[in-house]
Amino acid sequence: MVKLAFGSVGDSFSAMSIKSYLAEFIATLLFVFAGVGSAIAYGKLTSDAALDPAGLVAVAVAHALALFVGVSIAANISGGHLNPAVTFGLAIGGNITILTGIFYWVAQLLGASVACLLLKFVTGGKAVPTHGVAAGLSEIQGVVFEIIITFALVYTVYATAADPKKGSLGTIAPIAIGFIVGANILAAGPFSGGSMNPARSFGPAVAAGDFSGNWVYWVGPLVGGGLAGLVYGDVFIASNSEERVERSYERV
Amino acid sequence: MVKLAFGSVGDSFSAMSIKSYLAEFIATLLFVFAGVGSAIAYGKLTSDAALDPAGLVAVAVAHALALFVGVSIAANISGGHLNPAVTFGLAIGGNITILTGIFYWVAQLLGASVACLLLKFVTGGKAVPTHGVAAGLSEIQGVVFEIIITFALVYTVYATAADPKKGSLGTIAPIAIGFIVGANILAAGPFSGGSMNPARSFGPAVAAGDFSGNWVYWVGPLVGGGLAGLVYGDVFIASNSEERVERSYERV
Amino acid sequence: MVKLAFGSVGDSFSAMSIKSYLAEFIATLLFVFAGVGSAIAYGKLTSDAALDPAGLVAVAVAHALALFVGVSIAANISGGHLNPAVTFGLAIGGNITILTGIFYWVAQLLGASVACLLLKFVTGGKAVPTHGVAAGLSEIQGVVFEIIITFALVYTVYATAADPKKGSLGTIAPIAIGFIVGANILAAGPFSGGSMNPARSFGPAVAAGDFSGNWVYWVGPLVGGGLAGLVYGDVFIASNSEERVERSYERV
Amino acid sequence: MVKLAFGSVGDSFSAMSIKSYLAEFIATLLFVFAGVGSAIAYGKLTSDAALDPAGLVAVAVAHALALFVGVSIAANISGGHLNPAVTFGLAIGGNITILTGIFYWVAQLLGASVACLLLKFVTGGKAVPTHGVAAGLSEIQGVVFEIIITFALVYTVYATAADPKKGSLGTIAPIAIGFIVGANILAAGPFSGGSMNPARSFGPAVAAGDFSGNWVYWVGPLVGGGLAGLVYGDVFIASNSEERVERSYERV
Repeated sequence: MVKLAFGSVGDSFSAMSIKSYLAEFIATLLFVFAGVGSAIAYGKLTSDAALDPAGLVAVAVAHALALFVGVSIAANISGGHLNPAVTFGLAIGGNITILTGIFYWVAQLLGASVACLLLKFVTGGKAVPTHGVAAGLSEIQGVVFEIIITFALVYTVYATAADPKKGSLGTIAPIAIGFIVGANILAAGPFSGGSMNPARSFGPAVAAGDFSGNWVYWVGPLVGGGLAGLVYGDVFIASNSEERVERSYERV
Repeated sequence: MVKLAFGSVGDSFSAMSIKSYLAEFIATLLFVFAGVGSAIAYGKLTSDAALDPAGLVAVAVAHALALFVGVSIAANISGGHLNPAVTFGLAIGGNITILTGIFYWVAQLLGASVACLLLKFVTGGKAVPTHGVAAGLSEIQGVVFEIIITFALVYTVYATAADPKKGSLGTIAPIAIGFIVGANILAAGPFSGGSMNPARSFGPAVAAGDFSGNWVYWVGPLVGGGLAGLVYGDVFIASNSEERVERSYERV
Repeated sequence: MVKLAFGSVGDSFSAMSIKSYLAEFIATLLFVFAGVGSAIAYGKLTSDAALDPAGLVAVAVAHALALFVGVSIAANISGGHLNPAVTFGLAIGGNITILTGIFYWVAQLLGASVACLLLKFVTGGKAVPTHGVAAGLSEIQGVVFEIIITFALVYTVYATAADPKKGSLGTIAPIAIGFIVGANILAAGPFSGGSMNPARSFGPAVAAGDFSGNWVYWVGPLVGGGLAGLVYGDVFIASNSEERVERSYERV
Repeated sequence: MVKLAFGSVGDSFSAMSIKSYLAEFIATLLFVFAGVGSAIAYGKLTSDAALDPAGLVAVAVAHALALFVGVSIAANISGGHLNPAVTFGLAIGGNITILTGIFYWVAQLLGASVACLLLKFVTGGKAVPTHGVAAGLSEIQGVVFEIIITFALVYTVYATAADPKKGSLGTIAPIAIGFIVGANILAAGPFSGGSMNPARSFGPAVAAGDFSGNWVYWVGPLVGGGLAGLVYGDVFIASNSEERVERSYERV
């Protein structure tokens, strides 16, 4: 069941909310800087060779570690979304209002764009690589790939961070959120690129001035994130079964 | 001492139980998708070259991170097994009934199969690699390899998650469960394949339509997991020595 | 708002303070030993070939893991800075006095220097690689690169460790602090070197007797760390909004 | 100050103690199996080529993950030493009696030996690689290398696990203990081998029937671990300064 709520304008302009937007901006900037930076670094080390397995590990690990940290540093202020698909998935489940969500999106897209422009400067004008579906694959296949892996990401956000019954999982939630992105890049990198995040794809498109195929990284992540919000919110949060924690170990 | 209990049919069809099966299905699907996906990605990057050390790292890290997250996202609902050998090992120790365990198995095998069929589609029809014992090794050696590493996995599940005296270890249990699989793949990958999980081996066999040698990944993991349930359950849980926590540091 | 405080001489010479300096000395020594050691190890394995992606992963992972542990082992005694830029950033926010901070710096620089001299001995006289901005890049670009990534590091220290409202994030703070350095090295390694730490750059310069370009790794990290102290301290700590924790998940 | 205590024979033969020895045996076996197994796997993948950076990452990550898990699964029963140098370092600080420590050593050496004999079988008779100081390096340099890195390991055990004032660090202690070994292998692997653990070196020597140079991995780790016990025990535990936790963040 979709639980979208518009929200009041006052709420979205409170000092608290404005700090949330700043926290999202900074954390997204720092995440995208390290993530996209690692892809540029691979090009620098290999004179722009095609990606190889060691490079895929480097890029996946950079995203995993940087997203874990990015979520951590914003968690207590904005909730640590850093990703329009996460914000959308949480709005679908009624965890953030539409109005505030729009400001989150703006902060995230700005942060990612500034990160990529900064990268262009500090790497001496290196090209910023944009996401694109691999040759030989249709855009539909790319979209479905992004739907599945973003579903995994937003489902993880729900299960470890947004679920009121999360318990001690909450302590390691930022690690889980970062690491599912790392794992999925190791699978999706050579096919859809493994974005899971419209802001992560938007920033490089701004810096490169190239938005061709960029819609794939809006449609895929938003559909996947929205589905995760629907499934997790409706099936696992809506129900009144507080006693389920670790039941499988205590049943007999 | 084997503590298998059959369980009541009503229990296995409660709303709570059905949610458990769904949680196992989703979490196993997402784990297998990233894990098997990383193996397909290696083939894509190297035009299907033989595995090299960088590729082994990529595949091991993908499994480690994805299993950690998969266990996390199901932990509070189903206990986070994602693996028939874990379910069997827990049943041996009396932590889940046979009837509920059978439904867990069905959910896990379905999740793994759907993951591999989805991978076939989103990678544009790439072959899904199945587990197999390396050339030059007997199947008995493969089975024993899988017994040892699955023993390690299920022993870890017991010590960090199922043991009522686990204490603060419970907070990092999903990380430990994912990471022992990563470590064991780094050792077993080039020999037995490093499955530790009948569902992880079953899904690719379904997608590839090739079940040759698949029995190795049932016998090895189930024997190893069952042994871990026996040893840990009988020696370390059955005893009434609650005061042992961290004793080695306080003894003198 | 800069909150620098000088502090009393007595405080800086208490038994407690002297133990803090020793803890910083040991932890910085052990961190720099593993980090710089991994760079020397790469040279040994490849007969001093240019850095490749697998080598970058090795060096980044060594720094990430060693800094995480270094922060952990000093956290309860000195706060676990291991880095003059962290000490400076915390002083800017009023979290440590100038006088004590100076002793921290001395301990950190000594620890890093001893680590590099020890490395020279135990590797049989191998050259200790110093940080330097990549050919083709200006020193200004190197400085800005170091400003951004050190901002990320010190902001992480504030958000996960120094913020009184950090909550359960404090448990994983040392991991976050180590891993943001690992992520940033994967981006910055081939450009500015990815120091984020004047002591990490000072030690090798001492062992190699080569301080050319060393100022980059003072100016960049201190400016970046100072900025993080200003931003985080003023915007997110100064305010009286204790109720914000995880608000984004509870709002609607 | 050395605080060695002999202990009573009754204590060392209680049911509790015997379970501790079994827990040490199993955990050391599983750790050494994955760690040494990863080195054999590298040889298999590369037809026994010399170690390269990707292989070093594979071996370091396998040890880091497997030791983290090994410490976790024994922590609540035996304290999770898995290493004669850790047991010795803790005995020096008075945290375990000599008599019990001897039984820990026997369990650890047996576990490591069984692991290596099992590896010989399941890999089809592959040679088990033993530790040795690199060509061109003196054994003294190897010993000093092992002293420093084992000091780091045992100091980490003290600061994160054995220190009564460890606080929430205890939750992530097994991760820190595993990861400092991973970081140190990335530095020491191509020089001293990066053992830090007489049992880790003893097992392969048994399986290979080759004890040449094995003394290096007794002297280095025991001296390093003993020093850590002296320094940490005397300076940081002995003192009565309970209020120091996180003081550096609250001082001004």
